[in-house]
Amino acid sequence: MDMIDQIIRLALFEDSGLGDVTTESILPEPKTGSGVIVAKQDFVVAGTGVARAVFSVVDPDIRCDLAFKDGQQVKSGDTVLTVEGDLLGLLKGERVALNFLQRLSGIATLTRTFVDTLDTPGVRLVDTRKTTPGWRSLEKDAVRAGGGFNHRFALYDGILIKDNHIAVAGSIEKAVAAVRARTSHLMKVEVEVSDMDEVKQAVSAGAEVIMLDNMTPEAMTEAVDYIGGRAVVEASGNVSLSTLNTIAATGVDVISCGALTHQARSVDLSMRITP
Amino acid sequence: MDMIDQIIRLALFEDSGLGDVTTESILPEPKTGSGVIVAKQDFVVAGTGVARAVFSVVDPDIRCDLAFKDGQQVKSGDTVLTVEGDLLGLLKGERVALNFLQRLSGIATLTRTFVDTLDTPGVRLVDTRKTTPGWRSLEKDAVRAGGGFNHRFALYDGILIKDNHIAVAGSIEKAVAAVRARTSHLMKVEVEVSDMDEVKQAVSAGAEVIMLDNMTPEAMTEAVDYIGGRAVVEASGNVSLSTLNTIAATGVDVISCGALTHQARSVDLSMRITP
Amino acid sequence: MDMIDQIIRLALFEDSGLGDVTTESILPEPKTGSGVIVAKQDFVVAGTGVARAVFSVVDPDIRCDLAFKDGQQVKSGDTVLTVEGDLLGLLKGERVALNFLQRLSGIATLTRTFVDTLDTPGVRLVDTRKTTPGWRSLEKDAVRAGGGFNHRFALYDGILIKDNHIAVAGSIEKAVAAVRARTSHLMKVEVEVSDMDEVKQAVSAGAEVIMLDNMTPEAMTEAVDYIGGRAVVEASGNVSLSTLNTIAATGVDVISCGALTHQARSVDLSMRITP
Amino acid sequence: MDMIDQIIRLALFEDSGLGDVTTESILPEPKTGSGVIVAKQDFVVAGTGVARAVFSVVDPDIRCDLAFKDGQQVKSGDTVLTVEGDLLGLLKGERVALNFLQRLSGIATLTRTFVDTLDTPGVRLVDTRKTTPGWRSLEKDAVRAGGGFNHRFALYDGILIKDNHIAVAGSIEKAVAAVRARTSHLMKVEVEVSDMDEVKQAVSAGAEVIMLDNMTPEAMTEAVDYIGGRAVVEASGNVSLSTLNTIAATGVDVISCGALTHQARSVDLSMRITP
Amino acid sequence: MDMIDQIIRLALFEDSGLGDVTTESILPEPKTGSGVIVAKQDFVVAGTGVARAVFSVVDPDIRCDLAFKDGQQVKSGDTVLTVEGDLLGLLKGERVALNFLQRLSGIATLTRTFVDTLDTPGVRLVDTRKTTPGWRSLEKDAVRAGGGFNHRFALYDGILIKDNHIAVAGSIEKAVAAVRARTSHLMKVEVEVSDMDEVKQAVSAGAEVIMLDNMTPEAMTEAVDYIGGRAVVEASGNVSLSTLNTIAATGVDVISCGALTHQARSVDLSMRITP
Amino acid sequence: MDMIDQIIRLALFEDSGLGDVTTESILPEPKTGSGVIVAKQDFVVAGTGVARAVFSVVDPDIRCDLAFKDGQQVKSGDTVLTVEGDLLGLLKGERVALNFLQRLSGIATLTRTFVDTLDTPGVRLVDTRKTTPGWRSLEKDAVRAGGGFNHRFALYDGILIKDNHIAVAGSIEKAVAAVRARTSHLMKVEVEVSDMDEVKQAVSAGAEVIMLDNMTPEAMTEAVDYIGGRAVVEASGNVSLSTLNTIAATGVDVISCGALTHQARSVDLSMRITP
Repeated sequence: MDMIDQIIRLALFEDSGLGDVTTESILPEPKTGSGVIVAKQDFVVAGTGVARAVFSVVDPDIRCDLAFKDGQQVKSGDTVLTVEGDLLGLLKGERVALNFLQRLSGIATLTRTFVDTLDTPGVRLVDTRKTTPGWRSLEKDAVRAGGGFNHRFALYDGILIKDNHIAVAGSIEKAVAAVRARTSHLMKVEVEVSDMDEVKQAVSAGAEVIMLDNMTPEAMTEAVDYIGGRAVVEASGNVSLSTLNTIAATGVDVISCGALTHQARSVDLSMRITP
Repeated sequence: MDMIDQIIRLALFEDSGLGDVTTESILPEPKTGSGVIVAKQDFVVAGTGVARAVFSVVDPDIRCDLAFKDGQQVKSGDTVLTVEGDLLGLLKGERVALNFLQRLSGIATLTRTFVDTLDTPGVRLVDTRKTTPGWRSLEKDAVRAGGGFNHRFALYDGILIKDNHIAVAGSIEKAVAAVRARTSHLMKVEVEVSDMDEVKQAVSAGAEVIMLDNMTPEAMTEAVDYIGGRAVVEASGNVSLSTLNTIAATGVDVISCGALTHQARSVDLSMRITP
Repeated sequence: MDMIDQIIRLALFEDSGLGDVTTESILPEPKTGSGVIVAKQDFVVAGTGVARAVFSVVDPDIRCDLAFKDGQQVKSGDTVLTVEGDLLGLLKGERVALNFLQRLSGIATLTRTFVDTLDTPGVRLVDTRKTTPGWRSLEKDAVRAGGGFNHRFALYDGILIKDNHIAVAGSIEKAVAAVRARTSHLMKVEVEVSDMDEVKQAVSAGAEVIMLDNMTPEAMTEAVDYIGGRAVVEASGNVSLSTLNTIAATGVDVISCGALTHQARSVDLSMRITP
Repeated sequence: MDMIDQIIRLALFEDSGLGDVTTESILPEPKTGSGVIVAKQDFVVAGTGVARAVFSVVDPDIRCDLAFKDGQQVKSGDTVLTVEGDLLGLLKGERVALNFLQRLSGIATLTRTFVDTLDTPGVRLVDTRKTTPGWRSLEKDAVRAGGGFNHRFALYDGILIKDNHIAVAGSIEKAVAAVRARTSHLMKVEVEVSDMDEVKQAVSAGAEVIMLDNMTPEAMTEAVDYIGGRAVVEASGNVSLSTLNTIAATGVDVISCGALTHQARSVDLSMRITP
Repeated sequence: MDMIDQIIRLALFEDSGLGDVTTESILPEPKTGSGVIVAKQDFVVAGTGVARAVFSVVDPDIRCDLAFKDGQQVKSGDTVLTVEGDLLGLLKGERVALNFLQRLSGIATLTRTFVDTLDTPGVRLVDTRKTTPGWRSLEKDAVRAGGGFNHRFALYDGILIKDNHIAVAGSIEKAVAAVRARTSHLMKVEVEVSDMDEVKQAVSAGAEVIMLDNMTPEAMTEAVDYIGGRAVVEASGNVSLSTLNTIAATGVDVISCGALTHQARSVDLSMRITP
Repeated sequence: MDMIDQIIRLALFEDSGLGDVTTESILPEPKTGSGVIVAKQDFVVAGTGVARAVFSVVDPDIRCDLAFKDGQQVKSGDTVLTVEGDLLGLLKGERVALNFLQRLSGIATLTRTFVDTLDTPGVRLVDTRKTTPGWRSLEKDAVRAGGGFNHRFALYDGILIKDNHIAVAGSIEKAVAAVRARTSHLMKVEVEVSDMDEVKQAVSAGAEVIMLDNMTPEAMTEAVDYIGGRAVVEASGNVSLSTLNTIAATGVDVISCGALTHQARSVDLSMRITP
């Protein structure tokens, strides 16, 4: 039931689960070979673990050596990973391993750009739930590889009270009370607000984290001042490389940014196989 | 064993498989509501079927109406999809449905840009196997929604003899013979070549499709002339919006382009829920 | 991938997955009947949802009506649940539904006894991870049905730094810092301590919850005084009906008790079927 | 599809399937350690195999040595099991292995008490289908570890004609005939009866095993005399430590007892880990 | 975990799990149609239930009406089954449903020939474990549809002590004792023997069923006489249409015959679809 | 998701998934042994790989040596395969391995007979989709082991336009156009025809393969002449050992024959185990 194992198996199955008609015709008998995955641009690498796992699922006897750890800077021309083993297995793993590496490294690279841009120390840049379905934990790891932090993983390991919840509960106060009554004493309660009135209600209800959603820098500054350390403050909405430092300057503790995952583009990598 | 069903279930599980601690606290009893997914930019839509399926897997009693078919142009502000049913189900499906729609529509939109750019009639723009692991069939559908065509789906439903195969077999001729001897009489044999010498060998071996890999426009023109209709000709490598028409002008029949899937970025959509 | 669905299917499979040789011999053609599950002792009921789900997995056309909600008091002789439908289905669901109900109601009943015994208002009685493998969420629900609260669900939705973690990290301070650096800003950090020196270190490290493990009432009182509201205080170890109020009197906020789940015994229920 | 494997995986998944946020923060790099599971009371051990399997599923490289075999008497303070390997794996397996061992040993211990109480040689004490859903084969093994015997495993490997079957078939004779006509010649036919009239019908129908359900000791004695060896006789209902010998004295061959599994309570064990 | 459901899903997946490239191209929009499965020879039908289930798994909205029950005689030209619904679904189910029906009806038809040939009343003709892997329960049902009986389903629901078991145990007596000590009182003990000496040991050990394996008719007659009703007698080995009555004449109670399943050939059926 | 792995697991589960009550009683402790699978008739072997995989799934420590490769001729008395390892594992794998080998070798043997009968060089004898549900790839491999070739594997890796498709599309021309517009440029288009008029339409529509379905030898000869190399020609229907050469003489390129798989009968093999 390991989810990374599941996405690997799904990926391998869709690519070669029913065979590789070309290679099986040419290689009716096993034959050993080796391969290297090489960078064709500079990037921050992520996904090396899943790339290795791909080859291991294809054939546990394939030996795979990683030249970099997630989060390290790779230069164009660098060898990222070396594999050795049955040629049919190398060819089955090739495309899938590359497809994982290219996208996850794209996320780590984009995150690193955001982190390097951010000039206010101590502010956490965090991801969101806007991840590729099936890839949540891989992409969250890639964000950390790029120097970012993670928000809650999913709906079950963190509390975030949004406008719909407040509407159903009747008020921020009632929503916070309902959540506290049913959840563990180890979880903080976060409330999403969009104006000062809601900020005040959230503080008064005892929210431990307050998310300022799509508010102007001025309004965020006012909110941070009002909250005055009584809750962790998170900014959300319209976060881009150009707005990042303006937002950070408002004094918020955390900035959440969906672009880290959904605006990333694959980096360029290729695999060379030696029969 | 339906693979789309599997990626949907994996996606739902990673997001809310262990519950939604916030909503379950506030909504201990079932309550009905509705929701609309709204475009926040112009785009070509894809993934409406999988978005609908997400809600249906969450709760078969949720009613979902699609306002657009895959491949249609959506304008900012348009409602893409309407759902009605149990509020907890709508909130569980929300993020996952959006995550599918935003990425698949991004692929359809980028594909449409390529297709609209292409000014040579009759040339097929096709995708590659550089797709998001676990999403192969969804992304191939999105490419068609954008006006592109599909290359083989995977390693088992099409033959493509590459340099490694040729190295193992000993020659293009031997590789083609080996493949013909073992595969069905319904499959064409494609051979990847990188210079005129290989083009000649491929034609002589009876290849039915010849892929010109990373060749210059001049070399491609020469190859197309030499082949003279004896095989379908496919161009591959360095295909971008700026090179597309130069490549098409060489007379190739098919242009394959990995960027359609791996350089696409998510479009902007949001869901509004009314309790 | 729903875990309750999985344990239901596993349970049904082990009991009748390969058929019911007796009933299938006697009932070669479908025949309708009804059944009632009746209490043979007084108890607090839990597991009604899973009992209903059992029949629904056996045969979606079986109608099942619940006479009680989880957490309600049932008297000997009361009908807990009524089912109607295909007789073979009723007989396949019977034993499995009873086996779930009898154990989960046993847990709710024992929890209610603890809660009723506790005479200090405002103290939370919570469960632990000492649950029946495969039944975690069912048993956690049963504890709430009995009036208790839940501790973290598992290792992934709450932080608890124990002696082994401290030994590896080098100190409480280092352990807390390591955890904060990697986890979301929505999770509180709990530290397990066993003497006053560790209590002081935990407070100084900024622990938001402190677990006093197997400490004497006197030591717990001293710890509570020292902490003085700077962290939530949880008592753990040697919690029984006879020690409960002594522990509560020390001023702790939360008392965790494994016995709620691992010392509960099944209540007595039976099912009568009318062909 | 191995059911023990399934319950182990389900148990591990619910406890740490989505990670161990505490340990992973403190142990970003692999580190080796060891652990011992120690008895904190006297008991008859069962479940050692599943405890070992838990660690092996977590990490096949963890070495696990068992100090006792199922069915042996363990004294408080004894080491039951030793493990050695990756620390993260030991911590992931710890709680799940303990949860299995504590409950299964509880069943073996209770069964041993029943068996030791029984003073009539040659009478079989057997379990029932009142087992923990998902745990059937583990609990049946624990009963044997405690010196008991097993009744049929499930509805498919043994025939037991109950009142509902008789009602549907029309008579005991017709029910027995229907079952014989459809089942293999390797299965005995058991009929449940509640008075002498039914005993006579069962004998006359050729029942090979007759279950006396909830009958008085006097009625059971009369039934045993009447049957006179023409069928195996099983007593069922109201079997407890205080009634056991009275029931055995009636001359029955087999006594079935649900309490062995559903009234057992977990024994006390703990694991000490050395980083 | 239903095994028939699993083989159906596996069968559908291998045939159309990745789509039907022809039909999907021609039928981009849903279209309703109907189909009939027609006999092209005379046979005894079996597998109608699984054929219906195939269409239902493909699409629950397909309506399927059976014109015959398993075990009935079908004449060439008869309609066996009618389906109505989405045309794509009918075409996906067609080949798989036919493949099940043709083989299972072949088994029922061959079994009926054996049963009709057998001229000794009261002798049971039973199948063996020589069934198509994955099809055990379907083929056992088909044997009953043809008028045969079933031997044990598998290794877990019946006891059969063979030569290897005896060699390991040391003697027939010890083997029988070991089995009785561990198995339920509802199972008979069968012992396989190959000469009179072993027959005597089996009787003396209390075997309840004795299998005469590959013995001559004369030896079988002698064995039957010796056993004299003290055990059920089963003949095994070299059972064919030509030896059947000679074997039955020896007085055995049961004749087991692997040919019923492994020598059966598919009957001829086809499906006509009306768009 | 490997389909051969799935059918092996399903087969093992149905035979011994819930245990082997006989052997487990006699062999409570592990014991090593060996076994040989021996031919009891002459045949062409197939399925050696799956037989070996069966033992490996049962117990990865069982050593299995193959004496023959698929496609080789085996004589009665030859040892086909040797296994060595845990006795309980050998006994669990025995029947399942034999059941696979006997049927797959039956198919290879029948195919070899067809191939040896065929006296026209260069004609391909191919299988159909009339395979045992769940066994598609195993049986296709067995056909190749016997010297035959494979048709498309399934509905997704080859195009075959049949009468229903033509009826829906409106004409052969429209059907071919619809298929070409949606499928990859690597697939040939096959059209099924039943008379000369349809042959002409198929050629005119550009069909690359034409299947002559149930046509007389005379009509086939006429069709082959008309087509004149413009398409590959396949004969289908009424193919048996007696009609094979008449059909081949018409000049067709390919003959497809369902009997290879659905009329094959198991060969005779047995396993001898030495404890």
